Amino acid sequence: MIDPWGSSIIDYDKLTQQFGIKAFGDVVGEIEDPSKLMKRGIIFGQRDYKKITDALKNGDDFATMTGMMPSGKMHIGHKMVVDQLKWYQQKGSDIFLSIADMEAYAARGISSVKSRELALEEYIINYIALGLDVEADNFHIYLQSQNDDVKDLAYTIGRKVTFSQMRSIYGFDNSTNVAHIYTPLLQVADILHPQLEKYGGPKSVIVPVGPDQDPHIRLTRDLASKFNDEYGFIEPSATFHRFMTGLTGDKMSSSDPKSAIYLTDSIKDATKKAKSAKTGGRESLKEQKELGGEPDKCSIYELLVYHLVDSDDELKDLKQRCLAGEVLCGECKNCAAELLADMLEDVHSKTDEARKIAEKLL
Amino acid sequence: MIDPWGSSIIDYDKLTQQFGIKAFGDVVGEIEDPSKLMKRGIIFGQRDYKKITDALKNGDDFATMTGMMPSGKMHIGHKMVVDQLKWYQQKGSDIFLSIADMEAYAARGISSVKSRELALEEYIINYIALGLDVEADNFHIYLQSQNDDVKDLAYTIGRKVTFSQMRSIYGFDNSTNVAHIYTPLLQVADILHPQLEKYGGPKSVIVPVGPDQDPHIRLTRDLASKFNDEYGFIEPSATFHRFMTGLTGDKMSSSDPKSAIYLTDSIKDATKKAKSAKTGGRESLKEQKELGGEPDKCSIYELLVYHLVDSDDELKDLKQRCLAGEVLCGECKNCAAELLADMLEDVHSKTDEARKIAEKLL
Repeated sequence: MIDPWGSSIIDYDKLTQQFGIKAFGDVVGEIEDPSKLMKRGIIFGQRDYKKITDALKNGDDFATMTGMMPSGKMHIGHKMVVDQLKWYQQKGSDIFLSIADMEAYAARGISSVKSRELALEEYIINYIALGLDVEADNFHIYLQSQNDDVKDLAYTIGRKVTFSQMRSIYGFDNSTNVAHIYTPLLQVADILHPQLEKYGGPKSVIVPVGPDQDPHIRLTRDLASKFNDEYGFIEPSATFHRFMTGLTGDKMSSSDPKSAIYLTDSIKDATKKAKSAKTGGRESLKEQKELGGEPDKCSIYELLVYHLVDSDDELKDLKQRCLAGEVLCGECKNCAAELLADMLEDVHSKTDEARKIAEKLL
Repeated sequence: MIDPWGSSIIDYDKLTQQFGIKAFGDVVGEIEDPSKLMKRGIIFGQRDYKKITDALKNGDDFATMTGMMPSGKMHIGHKMVVDQLKWYQQKGSDIFLSIADMEAYAARGISSVKSRELALEEYIINYIALGLDVEADNFHIYLQSQNDDVKDLAYTIGRKVTFSQMRSIYGFDNSTNVAHIYTPLLQVADILHPQLEKYGGPKSVIVPVGPDQDPHIRLTRDLASKFNDEYGFIEPSATFHRFMTGLTGDKMSSSDPKSAIYLTDSIKDATKKAKSAKTGGRESLKEQKELGGEPDKCSIYELLVYHLVDSDDELKDLKQRCLAGEVLCGECKNCAAELLADMLEDVHSKTDEARKIAEKLL
């Protein structure tokens, strides 16, 4: 069982084998100019993505929908969502972004006021600074608690799912509070509501998420089919991206400052974190030169692949030199720290302007 | 367990003994001019009614809250609710009336549009024709699906009740749909929302209902205390009224035309039903004269007590004469049929005007 409220390290192979998530590699060839997250296998899985490659090819309307539960600081791992939204926005997709304040309340006791504040300060401002066009006509953002279409749809679809099904999908038990039991319906409604007549009617929808959100995707697809007659809902598609490893080698976590680069980190702090990150380096310089490094175990290499280096050739070259023992960890860390500093400087320079835009949004 | 979605014949003594409902007789003496439903023991039970006798004595603000699930035709048994609302309205109480369209959807698959139509045609129009002042400033009526305060409060309080508690109160099981599991929270929010700041803040609230609604009352009182710190909620009070026996001797039911006098029955139909009602008469005229009738088993006597005779003395006299075998069933039926015809004629004559008022309400 995958638990969207407390997943730890993910076994990606098991996901694809056990839960029926298909490899993204099966469809990436159908996409005209895939993003680097797509090409590099960071987006590793998908459900029903053919609907989206078809929509992209035919120029059909489709929507991109994702959500955030504001419960801590935004770190560089979260940037993947922004990159994907930007990519779909450039392809002409409508963008829907839900701030799951109702989920945050039921699952973690965070008030809606606090959720709004966290979402704005920690997420939306950075989303804007990272280049998401939130002022575009096709961009929709909302707090769940303020979206009547979502709230009403959640209740409506709740009639066709039993406690038993919820329990087997989410692992609820008798001690789960009733708001929490109800919460997944809000996520399902988040995903389905772009297909309501008010939003242009039935269409393909892509949901780019982490694999911990797959329970919502499965439930949504099930309920979409059950309400197909009434609403014409099409089963939504999804992609699943890998989570970044933390700088400490464990999970990158909002609540562990050493594990994560926060978007609000000072250049000094971010540089320091990069320079003390866990790498794929060997015990000694001699060993490193003889055996080469292990880039696949290196959080710095991951940082470069996920976020800091655009050129595939440059990355290939670096990896080869690392494997051959020609480049040492210190050098790589310095390089990553510099690129990171550039990126953060750019983000920070846009924060004030972004805040003004963000405050008008919600 | 009392199941608000499918109760049959009620054991009133068991209710008071097993579930802690107190006798209304314990408090009726504290009320300056009790209604006939109060004096005649039709309102048989209560929880925490002292708050209401205090409010009545001291002239404190309080609210009266009840709801209806529109799922069939309004019959004369439902008139008890109207009589109680009118009484509290005359005492200066704010009146809140919820049309439980969300419950009707989850429990019975009735759409909100259909609920509104049923509520207007079958209930509200008759409530108005029966003399409830729905145009008063202190009268509030709403469809659950259109009341954001109720919907939002339902979710908020849902955090402090578990599936296990819901199951033990309502008998839900693994096959219950999630909208239905959530529904009682809407009823609880119906009852608590008059205490929100927007509606004047914490106050005593009386909920006059049938005993099948006691699960909601108990859950509401529990959740009121759990959210006392946050909202200042006072545990609401409740009264419980007996259900009318049907004219057939079984339950009076919206779905069994022979059992019930509908408010929309023609005078001819109503008269015919009264005349073929089950009475407490004996097998033969001879026996009746010797042993007397059994008014406590007589649906005609019940009709007179609940709705048709205002004078206590007149009722006492009739009962004595029945017990003494001095009055026969035919005579009583004729008398009841006439009084019923008068009442229905009065209601019907006001229906057109009532419809105009009702249509402006929702």
